[in-house]
Amino acid sequence: MESKQMIEEGSQFSPKFDANGLIPAIAQDASTGEVLMVAWMNQEALDRTIKTGRATYYSRSRKKLWKKGEESGHVQTVQRILVDCDQDCLILKVAVDQGQCHVGYQSCFYRALKPASKTDLEFIAEKVYDPKAAYKKE
Amino acid sequence: MESKQMIEEGSQFSPKFDANGLIPAIAQDASTGEVLMVAWMNQEALDRTIKTGRATYYSRSRKKLWKKGEESGHVQTVQRILVDCDQDCLILKVAVDQGQCHVGYQSCFYRALKPASKTDLEFIAEKVYDPKAAYKKE
Repeated sequence: MESKQMIEEGSQFSPKFDANGLIPAIAQDASTGEVLMVAWMNQEALDRTIKTGRATYYSRSRKKLWKKGEESGHVQTVQRILVDCDQDCLILKVAVDQGQCHVGYQSCFYRALKPASKTDLEFIAEKVYDPKAAYKKE
Repeated sequence: MESKQMIEEGSQFSPKFDANGLIPAIAQDASTGEVLMVAWMNQEALDRTIKTGRATYYSRSRKKLWKKGEESGHVQTVQRILVDCDQDCLILKVAVDQGQCHVGYQSCFYRALKPASKTDLEFIAEKVYDPKAAYKKE
């Protein structure tokens, strides 16, 4: 069993998957620092990501692996994989083209709470592509 | 029941808590874009964060709310709260002082996988404070 100190101060990669076998992964634009999306990985998704250099996640809703961009073309080329102190969260530093969110924005985080509001969002970004065209749906 | 479109394209804040009543929250330095840490919030932690303007999380290990910095002094002043497309993840854009990670680094993400390795980490940051002093422990 690994000690807390080894996990936090050591140089062995020991990603901690949760009870469902998943670990959250933040995709961050390596050049701008913008957080693009957050998704989940199981061991296989992580292995494929490391092996191929392209981000592969595990879809909790579809219950299967999905290579980011397999449908839309908006892949993520992984430059670096960071892990946090207790090794239960990852950051993928990625190089991307335009349009990472399936709704049409560069980042999935295109809305923010309005100042002094607990309920109202404001849009803080513009769409950068047409998802209907990219995903070939009506 | 809210439709997918309302959740993704609407301006109503409807954070989706998981089966444990939690939502992941990424603390990102508002000035540098550096991702500092990832923690979890329940509804009460989110409410307190919005109300006080200081980040409050829910500790899964201690099973209670913790105001970031209550012990170390390294609080997070929240400038903006972003939500992603399906509203199951938050970003807190925060203003911080030096030293956000309890291990002694500015960010919890102070290690990265070595290039071409699946198992070995390298340190990519230097400690910015002495946690033993900050946390008043030996």
